[in-house]
Amino acid sequence: MVSEQKTADVNFESLLRIFTVPEGPDSTLTQIENSLSNNLNQFLREHIVAEEKPLIEIEKDFSVSQIPEQPEFVSDHTEHLLDTLVAHSVHTSSPSFIGHMTSALPYFLMPLSKIMIALNQNLVKIETSKAFTPLERQVLGMLHRLIYGEKDPFYSQWMHSSEHSLGAFCSGGTIANITALWVARNNALKAQGSFQGVEKEGLFKAILHYGYQGLAVLVSERGHYSLKKAADVLGIGQDGLVPVKTDSNNRLCTEDLKEKIAALKAKNIKPFAVIGVAGTTETGTVDPLADIADICRQEQCHFHVDAAWGGATLMSNKYRPLLSGIELADSVTIDAHKQLYIPMGAGMVLFKNPDAMRSVEHHAQYILRKGSKDLGSHTLEGSRSGMAMLVYASMHIISRPGYELLINQSIEKAQFFANLIKQQDDFELVSEPELCLLTYRYVPHKIKQAMLKANEQQLSDITCLLNELTKHIQKTQRETGLSFVSRTQLNPSQWGRRDSIVFRVVLANPLTSNDILENILAEQRSIAALAGSLLFDLDAIANQIVGK
Amino acid sequence: MVSEQKTADVNFESLLRIFTVPEGPDSTLTQIENSLSNNLNQFLREHIVAEEKPLIEIEKDFSVSQIPEQPEFVSDHTEHLLDTLVAHSVHTSSPSFIGHMTSALPYFLMPLSKIMIALNQNLVKIETSKAFTPLERQVLGMLHRLIYGEKDPFYSQWMHSSEHSLGAFCSGGTIANITALWVARNNALKAQGSFQGVEKEGLFKAILHYGYQGLAVLVSERGHYSLKKAADVLGIGQDGLVPVKTDSNNRLCTEDLKEKIAALKAKNIKPFAVIGVAGTTETGTVDPLADIADICRQEQCHFHVDAAWGGATLMSNKYRPLLSGIELADSVTIDAHKQLYIPMGAGMVLFKNPDAMRSVEHHAQYILRKGSKDLGSHTLEGSRSGMAMLVYASMHIISRPGYELLINQSIEKAQFFANLIKQQDDFELVSEPELCLLTYRYVPHKIKQAMLKANEQQLSDITCLLNELTKHIQKTQRETGLSFVSRTQLNPSQWGRRDSIVFRVVLANPLTSNDILENILAEQRSIAALAGSLLFDLDAIANQIVGK
Repeated sequence: MVSEQKTADVNFESLLRIFTVPEGPDSTLTQIENSLSNNLNQFLREHIVAEEKPLIEIEKDFSVSQIPEQPEFVSDHTEHLLDTLVAHSVHTSSPSFIGHMTSALPYFLMPLSKIMIALNQNLVKIETSKAFTPLERQVLGMLHRLIYGEKDPFYSQWMHSSEHSLGAFCSGGTIANITALWVARNNALKAQGSFQGVEKEGLFKAILHYGYQGLAVLVSERGHYSLKKAADVLGIGQDGLVPVKTDSNNRLCTEDLKEKIAALKAKNIKPFAVIGVAGTTETGTVDPLADIADICRQEQCHFHVDAAWGGATLMSNKYRPLLSGIELADSVTIDAHKQLYIPMGAGMVLFKNPDAMRSVEHHAQYILRKGSKDLGSHTLEGSRSGMAMLVYASMHIISRPGYELLINQSIEKAQFFANLIKQQDDFELVSEPELCLLTYRYVPHKIKQAMLKANEQQLSDITCLLNELTKHIQKTQRETGLSFVSRTQLNPSQWGRRDSIVFRVVLANPLTSNDILENILAEQRSIAALAGSLLFDLDAIANQIVGK
Repeated sequence: MVSEQKTADVNFESLLRIFTVPEGPDSTLTQIENSLSNNLNQFLREHIVAEEKPLIEIEKDFSVSQIPEQPEFVSDHTEHLLDTLVAHSVHTSSPSFIGHMTSALPYFLMPLSKIMIALNQNLVKIETSKAFTPLERQVLGMLHRLIYGEKDPFYSQWMHSSEHSLGAFCSGGTIANITALWVARNNALKAQGSFQGVEKEGLFKAILHYGYQGLAVLVSERGHYSLKKAADVLGIGQDGLVPVKTDSNNRLCTEDLKEKIAALKAKNIKPFAVIGVAGTTETGTVDPLADIADICRQEQCHFHVDAAWGGATLMSNKYRPLLSGIELADSVTIDAHKQLYIPMGAGMVLFKNPDAMRSVEHHAQYILRKGSKDLGSHTLEGSRSGMAMLVYASMHIISRPGYELLINQSIEKAQFFANLIKQQDDFELVSEPELCLLTYRYVPHKIKQAMLKANEQQLSDITCLLNELTKHIQKTQRETGLSFVSRTQLNPSQWGRRDSIVFRVVLANPLTSNDILENILAEQRSIAALAGSLLFDLDAIANQIVGK
């Protein structure tokens, strides 16, 4: 408990005290807060990915399944958290942590987060959020304008309209994508004649009513894994998520899209949505959005853009043309907790048409009454925190030109890193960066040359061994804890679409310097140098091909 | 920007600084944080619900749709937030805010939240969360044990098993309920012979394969509004959410449940899940869980308990029998941000069987690989914050007996308030509190007596007028801003199931004193006294019935 007086008992008086505002700067809680801040700052200043301890060992600290029968002092428990949790967490804001989309946060968000936590608003309804509701509507309006560029009168009319919604704030890109496809599905199977719409009668009757054999959503084979979840949840089935081929640059191939749509229609399966990806998770690629939009218009199907990660590029006047065509989308997903540098839990989906979400609108007796401005009548989630205020604050404190600088430097840093990789004898760039994400792998110089002359079988054997090597380097580097790159599996066209494991880096952290990137390659090279038997086997194949 | 030097430009050096740990206790950011803490504390100490300003006026402060082109100083923006946002937010932790389930938070969560925000872990995978993953699994284990009471060997075997899951952490009760029904739906329509399961082939083919005419979920007519959303999203359709009658105590009527199930089966509609509510949102009622469990076992359908709000009662050895039968559920929803006093965004769903979630398991190439312990392979959401650590910390600092005291006092306070209401000449208790939620209304003494003698038409007329009066009192009280009760619409059996608007209070805040409750009644009485024409009309009907 807060009181530091030793007592084995729980009593109601001391419980009441934990709900009472602590008085003054000398209170125990203030002291704990200060020491915690110092400790966290120290943790965040150390350039390590995490203190290394095998997961199985960490699990021992979290193995008790019974809720404690004895209270702990806040100070004791804070120490316990620092030792068992903080020391073994991942330093996602380290400049050498370049493996995932979770990056550094601006420090001003720490004090401002306090407002969100302390006020504990619930955005589902005005009665528990008041000013937070118009604030969230404004943030959605700002993102809508960033994408669609409508003029002032549009936003004056719709932004705060109780009957309309420019989008929905949610916990992340997955819920945003589900929301977009939910809206698209319901609009595709809406009420007609005596049929009351899929939202009322369900998918089985809807498909019978419309006389289809099934539904489909199309997305490039590089689409995010969460879309399979979405197809499953929404009753479409994972088979209904139809993968479209990609070209040698990992972009959706529009010819294949047209063929797949035609084939589905021939089977009387309704393709009700096509998803363009603006920044794929694995290669950072942007699909040809304007061309997809054309096809969707012709086919009268919903065009959704998954810009969860890449959407922030719109902040850059210089690079926003990379996402050209996004303004033609019916809906767009953007995660502010990715390249807008907001803490975890700030997803958004925006709809071009303020009427689109009517197909998922819902009401209740005690909240979300018709005509109310309660945000909850258009969200998949119910109770939600006031995360939107952190997006709002960052938009004001960093401003669009500030975000532009952050975006530009991240894209240009990726170009620098791509060139650096190309200059190495023993690395291979696998996918060029369009935004700030690229993939590459380590290939000993001799193997590189041998691959040019290898036959199919030899290429397959080499790929197998390189895959093992890449995995080994990535794991060892992660476990060493100085830096972190992630890995994934691609099918690069330059090597006959063979399943190839590659390093994947996301260069969003503004503190990641060129030196750090050089060090990461050097570290990977030295880990590879110690990979005895793998190198030996690779060398043997190379010798077969090009001679000793 | 952080630097307080006046500049109209954005430059990269100053941008880098916002990502750099602020040095020492004298930094500008530390000063801002301190002044913010003081200001928030002041706000939280004032006993008002919110500074009153009409929503339409507040919206003017949030009307700009363009992202700013000029950066703001953190200090200036903080002032702006305090003036425009904090001053017009809702004081959900006020002891006189008793209208909703959002209540006060223990103060130790403010400094501890810092750990969560500053470390910005992403719980979707080990690589961005490390120790947070076993911590979250432990929290799920603790809640599982609280509900199901399995023994140590069970938790040693399953809690940290990569192939299993005792549940899922999520943003709130809605996602928890959707997850439970998603699992139930997929298990009911699983692979069989050449059919690959609903998750692969979709709902249409699944229903054809199984030869049903549709699917249904049954829940009492007092079920949470989010279940309609769940039925819609999952493709079952809102019509597939079949309401079961309630008895005079608002509890699900098991006879009607059996009849409804039989009727559905006669139409070849598969009732694949029944939901029991442990603490309805509107009346706080607990359904007869053990009886429902019996019926579900006979019918072989999934038994889900929505204990989003009431589940915390399990912490009380004294009152846990009120939820007897919950241990028979296949799945249970609990929101830690309700009666476990955690900030917004801490929902959970627990599954009795560690294998249950296999039907929604998913994998990807770069994360969630088979055999990994990544939590993301069993969650509907993708990226998620480390909220579980706040539940973990509260479990340790408050401990079970501490939570028991909090739960007991809230239930006993509701009993006190119910008695207080019954003692009044001019108030009527509409639903008895089972947990800490009750409903009531203001009924002038004379009207009370007249109602006993009124005919059907007169009762309807009186109900109409009382509804208007209740609405008027509730709105005026909310706008006055000293206290807040919510309102909803019920169909109390004592007045012929007429649609009746009632006050609804949730007594979770430990600081809500008996005096405050007395004052709330007094305030409502004085607001009523000024409701001129409504009182006049009521009086006129009363005079008709009982004479002057």
